[in-house]
Amino acid sequence: MSVTAAKGFTAAGIAAGIKESGSPDLALVVNQGPRLAAAGVFTSNRVKAAPVLWSQQVLKGGQVSAVVLNSGGANACTGPGGFQDTHATAEKAAEVLGHSAGEIAVASTGLIGVRLPMDKLLPGIEKAAAGLSAHGGEKAAIAIKTTDTVHKTAVVQGDGWTVGGMAKGAGMLAPGLATMLVVLTTDADVDAAGLDAALRAATRTTFDRVDSDGCMSTNDTVLLLASGAAEVTPAQDAFAEAVRAVCDDLARQLIGDAEGASKDIRIEVINAATEDDAVEVGRSIARNNLLKCALHGEDPNWGRVLSAIGTTSAAFDPDKLNVAINDVWVCRNGSVGDDRDLVDMRYREVRITADLAEGAESAVIWANDLTADYVHENSAYSS
Amino acid sequence: MSVTAAKGFTAAGIAAGIKESGSPDLALVVNQGPRLAAAGVFTSNRVKAAPVLWSQQVLKGGQVSAVVLNSGGANACTGPGGFQDTHATAEKAAEVLGHSAGEIAVASTGLIGVRLPMDKLLPGIEKAAAGLSAHGGEKAAIAIKTTDTVHKTAVVQGDGWTVGGMAKGAGMLAPGLATMLVVLTTDADVDAAGLDAALRAATRTTFDRVDSDGCMSTNDTVLLLASGAAEVTPAQDAFAEAVRAVCDDLARQLIGDAEGASKDIRIEVINAATEDDAVEVGRSIARNNLLKCALHGEDPNWGRVLSAIGTTSAAFDPDKLNVAINDVWVCRNGSVGDDRDLVDMRYREVRITADLAEGAESAVIWANDLTADYVHENSAYSS
Repeated sequence: MSVTAAKGFTAAGIAAGIKESGSPDLALVVNQGPRLAAAGVFTSNRVKAAPVLWSQQVLKGGQVSAVVLNSGGANACTGPGGFQDTHATAEKAAEVLGHSAGEIAVASTGLIGVRLPMDKLLPGIEKAAAGLSAHGGEKAAIAIKTTDTVHKTAVVQGDGWTVGGMAKGAGMLAPGLATMLVVLTTDADVDAAGLDAALRAATRTTFDRVDSDGCMSTNDTVLLLASGAAEVTPAQDAFAEAVRAVCDDLARQLIGDAEGASKDIRIEVINAATEDDAVEVGRSIARNNLLKCALHGEDPNWGRVLSAIGTTSAAFDPDKLNVAINDVWVCRNGSVGDDRDLVDMRYREVRITADLAEGAESAVIWANDLTADYVHENSAYSS
Repeated sequence: MSVTAAKGFTAAGIAAGIKESGSPDLALVVNQGPRLAAAGVFTSNRVKAAPVLWSQQVLKGGQVSAVVLNSGGANACTGPGGFQDTHATAEKAAEVLGHSAGEIAVASTGLIGVRLPMDKLLPGIEKAAAGLSAHGGEKAAIAIKTTDTVHKTAVVQGDGWTVGGMAKGAGMLAPGLATMLVVLTTDADVDAAGLDAALRAATRTTFDRVDSDGCMSTNDTVLLLASGAAEVTPAQDAFAEAVRAVCDDLARQLIGDAEGASKDIRIEVINAATEDDAVEVGRSIARNNLLKCALHGEDPNWGRVLSAIGTTSAAFDPDKLNVAINDVWVCRNGSVGDDRDLVDMRYREVRITADLAEGAESAVIWANDLTADYVHENSAYSS
């Protein structure tokens, strides 16, 4: 159902010829209204792709009538010419759809440092517009895939309203968002400020706590569009929770499909002095290549967890740290704990609990293991 | 020649039975004087192994008469019992050598979270002491190897004096020092303060700028011992340069033997506003897994360099960044530069130059590529 689960939206996904493979590579999502409210969150990488720079400007107005998304090229590090390409994309969509270009968001994903084939992209927008449908969400989700092995969609039903969405992303996943394009839609009648509050709260504890490979992208974009077509204004709390649930679902799908991964690693940091401490420790564990290799080898190597914790500035006493792997407390008081042979590592999900023994705050970070397949996928060709 | 290149030192390396393989695993380096001056630099990881905690105390006195080093176990995260093991090691060496335990430094490397087999280690000290020789430096260097494929030594001759040393380390190499044990010796007549100044200056731009895999160890130790046996007091500048040259040589050997690596990557950041900016950007590039994979695949993927620079807080304008790979400026002004097909990637050394176009400062960081062999070596067994 994806972005067309909510009323008031149409979508399409087509093959414009941007990808040499001929696979679908262009998606269009259109808000039919009556409301055109929108909010967006973007990569915190200071090297931002042209479509990110463009869409950040568009979102300042709080109105988005359509989103054009392409795979097959990130349009990042492409200079003034690349920015003109994004502008031309928005202008073309505006012309075809009868909207203002200033209300058209653009998102791109693929190889950095290569100009987009505009001779294929611009006709593709016409083709996509001709195929717009209230059932087009699935096709749109398929068209934004790059190295994703499956397309990712999620829907949560509210009381007379719906939040749905699609996502792509399989590598370059790290805090500050990932090489990740996400479009969420709702038919709830929520203004731009309400959308923004819900979206920022949701991404902070979902997409921002996914760290597949520690690499932050130039193109990450998460958009939330409201059509108001359900003619219901939900309580902000209920709406925010629905947005969070959809983001959480999609974030887990990103981790589950990360490049070359064989393990999904849930890192929970507990009894931290502050939430920031918990997040810092969780990210440090998530990014430790030696630990990621060990977990790939089904080795509950808790020493690598401790050495990762030791590189942070979080409050802790090394002699009070406790670490559990799959609920076996293999490290107690900074030293050898229960028998590591008790840890069952056969399953895809691995749970690490790091107890800082300092306070009452906690955070969960999701990561993946590091595998020869990841190396192969990211060394065998440019991506 | 190693640690016995300088006059006034004896060393030994033997198999004490700590390693199940029966390979050499215990080294002893003894300063015969007349001077017993010493300086040390240790891991900045807040989770420190017992021998690091012990040796930090020893070094406060500025005197070291001997160093006991073992491979086959890091004695990290081993609690009060582990600290007692280190203490007993120093006491045993003191007894055998006729020195005070407070002048015996201890260093360990190997698996974290496992107690050392003291029933083998203590008799090993007697055996090593019996084998001490002014030609024992090579054997000592061999005995501290873990996953190292070769032992590492270096010597620089001054005017009537010598600085020599040995190092081990092949993984968990990152700023803040590596899983790296280094012992340097000199027969120059230099006091503890002079040794300390020379050693800190040297490690700051050598071992601290090696980043094999972004993982900081619990055990890193670099010691510099002076015997004064040459009866020459060199100018501090000349001495510091000799110490720096030996550290640089050993640091390069560590990178050249890093686990699973197929490329040595020299990252030079130029025209930075400050040296700190240059180092921050260099480390960010050095730790980017996607770039490390691309370079393994001989793909000059400069977009991944830019996205790594973009995650730093260094001063730069994204539209003024230039990047060269093996001297081809593949990125100019933040966009596509010279033809990437001109980059010859066949050799082991890869040179990345990142021009921040902000100032006049620079720094060099050495790193390695990320390979399936690295994953295998760190997932197939605990290390």
